[in-house]
Amino acid sequence: MGKGGSVQATMQQFPLTIAHILRHGSTVYADSRVSTLTGEGIRSASFADVAARAGRLAAALRRLGVRAVDCVGTFGWNHQEHLEAYYAVPCMGAVLHTLNIRLFTDQLTYVINHGGDKVVIVDATLIPLLANLAGDLTNVERYVVVGEMGKGDLSLLPGALRYEELLAAEEDGEDWPELEESSAAAMCYTTGTTGDPKGVVYSHRSVFLHALSECSGAAFGLSCADRIMLVNPMFHAMGWGLPYAAWLVGADLVFPGPYAQPEGLSRLAALTRPTFAGAVPTVWSDLLRYSESHSVDLSSLRMIISGGSAVPPALMDRFERRHGVRIVQAWGMTETSPVAAVSFPPPGTAAGDEMTWRAKTGRPLHGVEFRLCDDAGNLLPWDGIAVGEIEARGPWVTGSYHAVEAGEKFHDGWLRTGDVGTIDPLGFVQITDRAKDVIKTGGEWISSVELENALMGHPAVREAAVVGVVDERWGERPLACVVLRDDTTARPEELCSFLSSRVARWWLPERWALIEVIPKTSVGKFDKKALRALYAGGNLPVEVLPSLTKAR
Amino acid sequence: MGKGGSVQATMQQFPLTIAHILRHGSTVYADSRVSTLTGEGIRSASFADVAARAGRLAAALRRLGVRAVDCVGTFGWNHQEHLEAYYAVPCMGAVLHTLNIRLFTDQLTYVINHGGDKVVIVDATLIPLLANLAGDLTNVERYVVVGEMGKGDLSLLPGALRYEELLAAEEDGEDWPELEESSAAAMCYTTGTTGDPKGVVYSHRSVFLHALSECSGAAFGLSCADRIMLVNPMFHAMGWGLPYAAWLVGADLVFPGPYAQPEGLSRLAALTRPTFAGAVPTVWSDLLRYSESHSVDLSSLRMIISGGSAVPPALMDRFERRHGVRIVQAWGMTETSPVAAVSFPPPGTAAGDEMTWRAKTGRPLHGVEFRLCDDAGNLLPWDGIAVGEIEARGPWVTGSYHAVEAGEKFHDGWLRTGDVGTIDPLGFVQITDRAKDVIKTGGEWISSVELENALMGHPAVREAAVVGVVDERWGERPLACVVLRDDTTARPEELCSFLSSRVARWWLPERWALIEVIPKTSVGKFDKKALRALYAGGNLPVEVLPSLTKAR
Repeated sequence: MGKGGSVQATMQQFPLTIAHILRHGSTVYADSRVSTLTGEGIRSASFADVAARAGRLAAALRRLGVRAVDCVGTFGWNHQEHLEAYYAVPCMGAVLHTLNIRLFTDQLTYVINHGGDKVVIVDATLIPLLANLAGDLTNVERYVVVGEMGKGDLSLLPGALRYEELLAAEEDGEDWPELEESSAAAMCYTTGTTGDPKGVVYSHRSVFLHALSECSGAAFGLSCADRIMLVNPMFHAMGWGLPYAAWLVGADLVFPGPYAQPEGLSRLAALTRPTFAGAVPTVWSDLLRYSESHSVDLSSLRMIISGGSAVPPALMDRFERRHGVRIVQAWGMTETSPVAAVSFPPPGTAAGDEMTWRAKTGRPLHGVEFRLCDDAGNLLPWDGIAVGEIEARGPWVTGSYHAVEAGEKFHDGWLRTGDVGTIDPLGFVQITDRAKDVIKTGGEWISSVELENALMGHPAVREAAVVGVVDERWGERPLACVVLRDDTTARPEELCSFLSSRVARWWLPERWALIEVIPKTSVGKFDKKALRALYAGGNLPVEVLPSLTKAR
Repeated sequence: MGKGGSVQATMQQFPLTIAHILRHGSTVYADSRVSTLTGEGIRSASFADVAARAGRLAAALRRLGVRAVDCVGTFGWNHQEHLEAYYAVPCMGAVLHTLNIRLFTDQLTYVINHGGDKVVIVDATLIPLLANLAGDLTNVERYVVVGEMGKGDLSLLPGALRYEELLAAEEDGEDWPELEESSAAAMCYTTGTTGDPKGVVYSHRSVFLHALSECSGAAFGLSCADRIMLVNPMFHAMGWGLPYAAWLVGADLVFPGPYAQPEGLSRLAALTRPTFAGAVPTVWSDLLRYSESHSVDLSSLRMIISGGSAVPPALMDRFERRHGVRIVQAWGMTETSPVAAVSFPPPGTAAGDEMTWRAKTGRPLHGVEFRLCDDAGNLLPWDGIAVGEIEARGPWVTGSYHAVEAGEKFHDGWLRTGDVGTIDPLGFVQITDRAKDVIKTGGEWISSVELENALMGHPAVREAAVVGVVDERWGERPLACVVLRDDTTARPEELCSFLSSRVARWWLPERWALIEVIPKTSVGKFDKKALRALYAGGNLPVEVLPSLTKAR
């Protein structure tokens, strides 16, 4: 009877697919609700209803010729129909391609063509944006329009079909196919500041595991007692996984539709009493300002997740004091599905010390592994001091890009995040710079962001951007580009002296340019590529101070 | 550039293994603690320490000749060393076989031989139990003893090695192998009341997914703010997955060692202030009774999970009123890893109605799917009325047994749980009987358990067991076997009349046997097989009342 040496696992082969999430949500939590803000109020449907409509949508798309692994684009706000596409498209075996409605025309054309979208589901109100480029789309065969079309809209998108008419022509009871967990479920393009956007293709498995991990107490601790206000756009990184996490646990979903501004969010919160919400820091900052002059009741919220860029501690602090709800930082990128780290203070932290931890980038969420590497690819210690590039791996981290070579973005199978920072002994990541902006000087790294933050603490400085420029002796040295406030004056010597008590001596810039304006990218970030080009072309008014840096 | 029809997922191939849980816990939560109750107090180690010791254990086992897919048995209480084996054995590629220290000698011999255990790690205090059968073990090459051996212990297990000496001879820095997620990680035998025990072999993937799901807000909502008091034996169904869930989120673990009785648990809770605990209902019932005459402080607990058998509502109610902590029912079996369902009331339930839901078996946890089948294998509706056998599937549900045929336990790939009950439209399962005990009469099913519960409500009844017996007209009819309290009398007519206002008329038994004692199994359950045999042999004093059942 001895079986030593031949033990095989007896577990079932059960694929991790969005189809399970759909079945689970629509049966165990059939009564949970999906609500969308309208101009008049709220429209609402049960999970069971949404699942039935997703089935009709799948049938309609199949009738339009969509087959497994075909791409179906969505071009819309956050609403019930977008959620229906989130389930219908992957569960029929096709690939959901969420399109960023804020992309420049050229980029949008590129991603729709490169993704190979065959059908695009578009909000009626967004038809004018899409009509601009429809002539350049090489694969799109059909447009399906959500919402009431105005007169003339159909002429902008000839042949467009009405979403509700398509659903009405189908019947309930879609017979979903069985899918492999490794099959493609959805696609999202990164919007890097350099080069063409690159497509990340999520698998059913990665979507499942990411959403399941979000439900954990180590992340958002979601349950059927929650009502999730989804403000982060569904066209960014699959809506942060929340549309799927909600169905795993039966949490209600509430969508702002196109009303994702303070007035709309305030109205939505009052009407639906959400317990949980996600959005980028700007949204919370705008809402906080709005609430200073309007009555805003966010008392139903137990937690807010903010990501997309670092959350200023002052915002977290003021938001909690006014609204009694804590903003928690989550970190990630399109390539990491996106949630890779969450920043909770360690247990036992004194109340007064919590912000020290909460202001950090976060600890890796279970499933995700981080490591820190220097320029040569050597591993660096988790000591909170060594600075290197963060690399990530895990079941919801991408290992390549759709149909392009991107070898330098990966290192022994790990994703190079392009973010530079430290990791401390408790696993807390602190990102200090983008890798392309870090200043590499004499074998050490200077954080451009920290220099900028220090400079902007000077009363005369309105804006400051620091970039690395070639230096014969040190390889690179910082160039500080400073915009002074109106009616103020400050000499580089004075600014440098101000800095000297705030950063290490060898960080102090020799090169200074007092300029009128710092060039910005389309999303409002400093355009450091442009600054470096201006410097290289001799087009900045650079003053050079004596170097204070010595060999260390 | 169009890529329509050829989209492949770009996600990394990252295996779901216990090795990730070990890495995650020992780096991100290096400072979390593992504590074990001793006769004198608490001994404690950090996750980082435990991980290092697990590495030494793996090196020592390898030196003893343990190779990948070899089985290593554990025969011990809940303590730090048992946890070290939970990580060392699967992460080195071998298979952890947790042995139930309460098994009969014959069953224990069978499972150690059938599992093929090559090494057994045994608590010093349990050596006498194991020494009884050591001569019959065909594969065991070495015993490794945890804890101080008394004099004479070594002579009971010749050649036994000391755990701490083995670890001391190795060095830190184990180089763990890369494993496939489908590989065998651990094994546990079911202890069915019929036939030989059957081995369930968990994979790394199933252990990972089960533990991750336990962290969800839909289950236990675990986080690094938790401290888990693990009272449920680590030799049952992999300690309910909690040793792994704790490391995914950084929750402290506290173990009672051999002191899992009310006095010990009370002392452990006072010393460690746990927030969460798991155990079978008897433990909580004993602790509640103990706290009536002793000072017991459980105020640190936020949630208690109870499983293994149905939790009486009165126990939940009294426990919450005395200790301010809620007992939540979880349902599962060795074959389901074990957690398959958890019973939280739906949101919006009025406080007075919560027990109605909490007393149910529970709703399926995400990842697990249930269906309800009749005798012929047809699907039954989720209407809360139709009664059938519960079938389960999912990534942590077994699809076979180790090295035995068990075809009738599976149905189209689903596990037949052997439990009979209903599922309501919200997915709440209510188990009413074991399939083998349900009484099938005229095409309908009668719950033996409900009849027993109703009978035991009669003041004269001490115990009642109801079994199905052959009936010419109806196929089967209930036989009620009743033990009356001392100094009471009651005739079958009176008991039947008492029942008639409590159950459907067609459930009323015609056959009655007033007996002295109901035969019990080794774990104290009614031995219905023995009752049926007594009846078949004419060895019960059966009285027959006129049938009240009519064709319906």
